[in-house]
Amino acid sequence: MTDADVRLVDMTLRDGMHAVDHQFTPEEMADVAAALEAAEMDVVEVSHGDGMGGSSINYGFSAATTEEYLDAVAPELDDTRLSVLMLPGIGTVEEIDMAIDRGADMCRIATHVTEADISEDHFTKVKDRGLEANGLLMLSHMAEPERVLEEAQLMEEYGADAVYVMDSAGALLPQDVRDRVGLLTEELDIEVGFHAHNNLGLGIGNTLAALDEGATTVDGCLRGLGAGSGNAQIEVLVGVLEKAGYDINPDFFGVMDAAEDVLVPMINDDEMPELDNDSLILGYAGVYSSFLRHTRRAAEKYDLDPREILIELGDMEVVGGQEDLITDVASRLADESGAAAEAAGDD
Amino acid sequence: MTDADVRLVDMTLRDGMHAVDHQFTPEEMADVAAALEAAEMDVVEVSHGDGMGGSSINYGFSAATTEEYLDAVAPELDDTRLSVLMLPGIGTVEEIDMAIDRGADMCRIATHVTEADISEDHFTKVKDRGLEANGLLMLSHMAEPERVLEEAQLMEEYGADAVYVMDSAGALLPQDVRDRVGLLTEELDIEVGFHAHNNLGLGIGNTLAALDEGATTVDGCLRGLGAGSGNAQIEVLVGVLEKAGYDINPDFFGVMDAAEDVLVPMINDDEMPELDNDSLILGYAGVYSSFLRHTRRAAEKYDLDPREILIELGDMEVVGGQEDLITDVASRLADESGAAAEAAGDD
Repeated sequence: MTDADVRLVDMTLRDGMHAVDHQFTPEEMADVAAALEAAEMDVVEVSHGDGMGGSSINYGFSAATTEEYLDAVAPELDDTRLSVLMLPGIGTVEEIDMAIDRGADMCRIATHVTEADISEDHFTKVKDRGLEANGLLMLSHMAEPERVLEEAQLMEEYGADAVYVMDSAGALLPQDVRDRVGLLTEELDIEVGFHAHNNLGLGIGNTLAALDEGATTVDGCLRGLGAGSGNAQIEVLVGVLEKAGYDINPDFFGVMDAAEDVLVPMINDDEMPELDNDSLILGYAGVYSSFLRHTRRAAEKYDLDPREILIELGDMEVVGGQEDLITDVASRLADESGAAAEAAGDD
Repeated sequence: MTDADVRLVDMTLRDGMHAVDHQFTPEEMADVAAALEAAEMDVVEVSHGDGMGGSSINYGFSAATTEEYLDAVAPELDDTRLSVLMLPGIGTVEEIDMAIDRGADMCRIATHVTEADISEDHFTKVKDRGLEANGLLMLSHMAEPERVLEEAQLMEEYGADAVYVMDSAGALLPQDVRDRVGLLTEELDIEVGFHAHNNLGLGIGNTLAALDEGATTVDGCLRGLGAGSGNAQIEVLVGVLEKAGYDINPDFFGVMDAAEDVLVPMINDDEMPELDNDSLILGYAGVYSSFLRHTRRAAEKYDLDPREILIELGDMEVVGGQEDLITDVASRLADESGAAAEAAGDD
């Protein structure tokens, strides 16, 4: 996809949208994109945090439409490629056409790690239009390497040019990354990518582990913006890859400047990702951040430590939409700890 | 030193002192120490950021004396051991006696990675008093693994019970850590430790790499406090080690609570370590943070990017005290880039 050793995908204007409640303006997006083009970034991804079609009451409304964002960003990019994100079930095949018509150079298609089978039509559409299609397997910590491989092979069959192991909850340890990425690079004929989150402080460490195992395309955000405790901090990643001797396209100083001179002035201090106890326990438990608020409420009701509930939910491998399980788990844990009587008194 | 797989040393009250300009009060230290004792931390280190004797016009005055800090902290610790830091040249052998008299259980003795030979008297003193002595080789990125080993062997000869590879500038990549720690664990008869800084986002990743190679004692700070972009974030490290199956003493939730409930309320937002462009370029160049301010001034005078100067200084392996080289380097770089004429015009 590039003649460098590694291709870098900057998702400041997509995963980074989570950190600003999807409120970047088209003008802000254009400024960030221009700085990344100047820094010779390989790919810039632009979409609502949850992909095209994500702007909704469920996922939060973005400040502008995908059309407006693409119209603002596309003219700023020349050598840097423009990617859009599509989550089948949230976005539709029609939106892929729209994005391509408005200048998208490639489309990344993301499903839960065990649900690649819902993405066939979306790959077909992108490939029919002659564009690069990447498959992203989200929450990859929830499947064993062999299962991740099976799902990746489905995406390969559908036409994917690359498949990513996505550590959406920031729950993988370096060895877990090696096991998954290593198996994929061994068995697939297409490129393998990795997408980190920093909940366990391993955004950069895990990305290096993935590259060691043969990944050739990796994700990051300026200043580590992104959901939860953020993604791999891309200006750091560029510096680390240069220092480690990888041949890459982006210019280290240019990406640093994009981060500090262009992005930082747009962001409030409380929007900057932090590795606090909340993001740490979510990474430890392997649970997505949407569970946090409800879990706190249940913990109070049942006089439990919310961390115990989250760890239990993680063991059950809950996914988005299963938030109703929280009360069941809290009630059971309270029973087990003999605290049931007290909780009943509160009702 | 412990029957766990790994011993954790919390340096919030020592390396963390750098982040607060050495202004923790004895009462604050007592509160943090009590929380760490409750969390079953293995070791708590208490000293000025630059070790005993560091409180001075050169290194910054601390809010209280080492005596006052030790008198406040020692009564809070029971199972958790109390360590003090000694940099020969800054502190004196007499201060080791003082610290032991006031309850220190062990002493860590730190020298530049090529200067272990100045530490013999200090090791002798600690061992004569019957205490554990650890040797810390600072700025370990400035020496090849073989040289690090020679210096570590000197410390072993002087009586060290453990020797640490210290990545004081946060400049090592995981493979660099493996090369150094791996050689030491192979060749030494004593334990090997690792101390990370997060300038390249590798505080946790590098610590895991060190443990992979057989290190058995590692450093961290609550919330990743510490000089530069901070140390390994110790509550994250505890969670990661538990998740990875290491047998450790500290209690995960307890250490998290010490961080968020006890430490965070003591710290201003602008004291929290950040991985910004300044700390990134220092880690990339392998230059200690004391060079930053002077480099900025020289860059302005010679119309250069301060980052170019820092990278050149890093290639020259400058160490603290050599700040006068900055102007020479800037002048030479300006000459080379043909900007000398402009710079002269500014004079």
